[in-house]
Amino acid sequence: MGQYVAPIRDMQFVLHEFLGVTEELKAMPHYAEVDADIINQVLEEGAKFTQEVIFPLNHSGDREGCHFDPATKSVTTPKGFKDAYKQYVDGGWAALACDTDFGGQGLPVVLNNSFYEMLNSANQAWSMYPGLSHGAYECLKEHGTDEQKKVYLPKLATGEWTGTMCLTEAHCGTDLGMLRSKAIPQADGSWSITGNKIFISAGEHDMAENIIHLVLARVPDAPEGSKGISLFLVPKFIPNADGQPGERNGIACGAIEEKMGIHGNSTCQMNLDGAKGWIIGQPNKGLNAMFVFMNAARLGVGMQSLGLTEVAYQNALAYAKDRIQMRSLSGPKAPDKPADPIIVHPDVRRMLLTAKAYAEGARAFSSYVALQIDRELHHPDEEVRKEAADEVALLTPIIKAFITDNGWIATSECMQVYGGHGYIAEWGMEQYVRDARINLIYEGTNTIQSLDLLGRKILMDNGAKLRKFGEKIKSFVEENGLDESLSEFVTPLGELGDKVTKLTMEIGMKAFQNPEEVGAAAVPYLRVVGHMVYSYFFAQMAKIALSKEGDFYKAKLATARFYFARLYPETAMLIRQARSGSASLMALDADLF
Amino acid sequence: MGQYVAPIRDMQFVLHEFLGVTEELKAMPHYAEVDADIINQVLEEGAKFTQEVIFPLNHSGDREGCHFDPATKSVTTPKGFKDAYKQYVDGGWAALACDTDFGGQGLPVVLNNSFYEMLNSANQAWSMYPGLSHGAYECLKEHGTDEQKKVYLPKLATGEWTGTMCLTEAHCGTDLGMLRSKAIPQADGSWSITGNKIFISAGEHDMAENIIHLVLARVPDAPEGSKGISLFLVPKFIPNADGQPGERNGIACGAIEEKMGIHGNSTCQMNLDGAKGWIIGQPNKGLNAMFVFMNAARLGVGMQSLGLTEVAYQNALAYAKDRIQMRSLSGPKAPDKPADPIIVHPDVRRMLLTAKAYAEGARAFSSYVALQIDRELHHPDEEVRKEAADEVALLTPIIKAFITDNGWIATSECMQVYGGHGYIAEWGMEQYVRDARINLIYEGTNTIQSLDLLGRKILMDNGAKLRKFGEKIKSFVEENGLDESLSEFVTPLGELGDKVTKLTMEIGMKAFQNPEEVGAAAVPYLRVVGHMVYSYFFAQMAKIALSKEGDFYKAKLATARFYFARLYPETAMLIRQARSGSASLMALDADLF
Repeated sequence: MGQYVAPIRDMQFVLHEFLGVTEELKAMPHYAEVDADIINQVLEEGAKFTQEVIFPLNHSGDREGCHFDPATKSVTTPKGFKDAYKQYVDGGWAALACDTDFGGQGLPVVLNNSFYEMLNSANQAWSMYPGLSHGAYECLKEHGTDEQKKVYLPKLATGEWTGTMCLTEAHCGTDLGMLRSKAIPQADGSWSITGNKIFISAGEHDMAENIIHLVLARVPDAPEGSKGISLFLVPKFIPNADGQPGERNGIACGAIEEKMGIHGNSTCQMNLDGAKGWIIGQPNKGLNAMFVFMNAARLGVGMQSLGLTEVAYQNALAYAKDRIQMRSLSGPKAPDKPADPIIVHPDVRRMLLTAKAYAEGARAFSSYVALQIDRELHHPDEEVRKEAADEVALLTPIIKAFITDNGWIATSECMQVYGGHGYIAEWGMEQYVRDARINLIYEGTNTIQSLDLLGRKILMDNGAKLRKFGEKIKSFVEENGLDESLSEFVTPLGELGDKVTKLTMEIGMKAFQNPEEVGAAAVPYLRVVGHMVYSYFFAQMAKIALSKEGDFYKAKLATARFYFARLYPETAMLIRQARSGSASLMALDADLF
Repeated sequence: MGQYVAPIRDMQFVLHEFLGVTEELKAMPHYAEVDADIINQVLEEGAKFTQEVIFPLNHSGDREGCHFDPATKSVTTPKGFKDAYKQYVDGGWAALACDTDFGGQGLPVVLNNSFYEMLNSANQAWSMYPGLSHGAYECLKEHGTDEQKKVYLPKLATGEWTGTMCLTEAHCGTDLGMLRSKAIPQADGSWSITGNKIFISAGEHDMAENIIHLVLARVPDAPEGSKGISLFLVPKFIPNADGQPGERNGIACGAIEEKMGIHGNSTCQMNLDGAKGWIIGQPNKGLNAMFVFMNAARLGVGMQSLGLTEVAYQNALAYAKDRIQMRSLSGPKAPDKPADPIIVHPDVRRMLLTAKAYAEGARAFSSYVALQIDRELHHPDEEVRKEAADEVALLTPIIKAFITDNGWIATSECMQVYGGHGYIAEWGMEQYVRDARINLIYEGTNTIQSLDLLGRKILMDNGAKLRKFGEKIKSFVEENGLDESLSEFVTPLGELGDKVTKLTMEIGMKAFQNPEEVGAAAVPYLRVVGHMVYSYFFAQMAKIALSKEGDFYKAKLATARFYFARLYPETAMLIRQARSGSASLMALDADLF
């Protein structure tokens, strides 16, 4: 069923040539031993594992789905999932970016990021089981007690246990302030938690011996709204004194959902009936702690769509070279055949290049942000850590929303390359589209990401973080503005940078008078900034490509040119939409819709 | 499972106020007896039938799908489909726009169009069974012999028998010139046809007593390519002398496809093994005859996406009024509740209004074209018939591609309004997205539509048809340009009209030197022209709304304003893309992708 070959060459280009990652890591004692050889070896081993073990389960997992047994309240994952997970744990893959203190391999986030792209290209539904464990690990590491860390982190690091986030309830997803699950303190220092959660990915499954739920609930007399939410650690099996899974806890799956896609992942309704839990961090500060998890998850969702974009592209490309249909408009290109391969047709190329450019843009972007996370966590200079943290905060909602919007577009274009065959399940393309669709929704809808970017990350600090990032762009434009060979990239980049500055100020001014202006502008605004980031990265990558010889660089240059010719022009639309204001949205009374 | 109420008020607005359809029909003796009462009565009865009989089968039909029995080579449609079809035939719905000569009701295409929208809102998969019969009817009526008409048209008109188009083979869909099915002449004047067809919608089912396949095949010594294709009538059961289904013919279903959506419709592999057929029209002129069917089908596909857009909008709207989540940015709107209904949020309104504007635009557009078909067929003035035919030819690819692209966008936005619930099958929204996706592919992909528009319909006649339509727009702009109350609509319309003229000439000039320029520009070009058409219609509708009082007109005006503020700006992107030329698409060698 289709094919997947990890794009190691492009990953190496991004890591070594675009980011100069080994130099960057050298500046961090924590990663002193990570050199180019280690990086390349992990990429190659990761490619083998994901191609050979995980990818073959993607289509079958979609067709089979998960099965829930109401009698035992257990979930059976699709055939092969459990065995693949054992290989994943045994191979040490879960531990890649976890700390050596807790049994991890201590490798950088930026490298784990590439591996995570491969996992998601190979099988998004499967990758969601371990994907959430890492967020739970990060959250506990930052907010857990020493005792909690000792018991849980090694198990999460190795992947023997998996993790979940239990946030959503039937009546509230975006608006967590409304949640109703209750936690009552117990004499032994634990809490008794009762409530019903929905949409819990990997909430129940048969792949690991224990599942660690991170659950949001209210303590008695908690303030109303989001300031009265606490975070609890609720294991499926309560660990014994020896750290092994013991007594079954009062949290269980009540049902799994029938969904549009990611059928191989169990989306669970979880019922807590006096489940034993332990508080993570302070009472009523749960959302704060959960945001560590959430931010990791948001970056992860962006990677899911990058993964899908890449694998959809590879398959569409293979089909476009193989399928013959019609002659080229400029005369036969395969005169020995009854028709030309469809890759000769300009619009087929447009569809392919859209996916290629969005994959390569997302790879550069997400790797850049992953490296910033390494710097935020481990750079010895506090100033650098602070700056990196600011950039990560600024760029996280863009990773989540821009890459997933683009992934939706790109997987759909790749499916379209197949014509009618794209709609048929057997060919595997329609699964990528269905799987890609969830990424615009979960971990905060893309609208929420846009509001986070424009409202919280930009307007709330008067544009300081954006300005900092903009200065990097400005320097690049100034340094390269006189280089004629680069002007096709640098000129539109410089123009867009100026337009973003102007647009941000304009919306900021309007928002003073009318807060609805933020909501009206946020979605197109995020995409404009996303394009500014991609323009910046494509200009840099084009500069590198121009300085080198060979087919890889020719292709990179062509992709950058395509980006500026065909994708960048979206900014002309987006800026008009962002400037059009709230009046046309708010004028109509709800009853007159 | 969700809701559907036929938008009769808006249909009446389009038919009576926007198109002045009764006046128009009065000019055609063929429709002399069709007055406003008849039209409104059909709309009301059609609403009842589609809401009560067809809509309740939509979700269940998707979940159940069709079942194929290899032993009997028969297809069982989902529960309730067959009974609903009987009600459809008994109610005379199939016969609505068929000629009274053949047992039809002789009502105008423009009215049938509204009913067809309702059918597709209620259930696209179900509606595809009778949907193709009408195309077969039209094709036979125009190209069949008197004998063929006598035997088949009354059965197709009443719906007792259904029809199919058998074009695609595994190795060719777009490129029909490559097809291999063979027809050998027999002594009795019939033909013996052998070959394998795929993607035959409604190729086999249990809803009607006979199925009439229109099959493309090659006669002996036919020229190669598309000039050697002939069209044959191949009934599942060969009619006896009394006109009743007799001997089982050698055409049978070999399998049905697992698809992304339209699960309730059987997509069949059809095997012809010496099947008895009769030629329709002349040998080697089959594509020509089939185009009558194809054009009807293309308009039908546009209507499918209009139907889905409307029903997805209605459900998203109901959800947005009901679901409470977060407070309005400008302060609580439902202070008595723990949160505001999400329709207060600007971006939720953007999503809803996108669907609303695309539904209302498509309704006006498709009704306009349907009326042109009535004029083409029945206007006493030959000049008028010719002009109408030209407009239908020009606008058909836009109906197909623009409405289906927009339907994909709109159903996805409506699903997004539901947040996580949108991804869950139970809520019904994800089905609309999956169903909508096929419409961009079948009956000629949207790329093929774009090439048809730009290449065949515009450049091949030096823009004559486009210019004619453009003159109507120019007159409207001149007549209304000085009316200040209209300038917000008329100014952008006039500007876009000028831009389209300029863009068309520019592409035409470039195409002289390089035919790839047509392929490179076609897709964004079609959408630019689509927006010109919508701008024209929204400006006209806004003019009417401004002259009237009441809630309906307030809403219409707000929708028009939203269209120009938020959807029209896409033209800024599209024009840049269309002008960017072929270089960025064609530069990269296929091996370097």
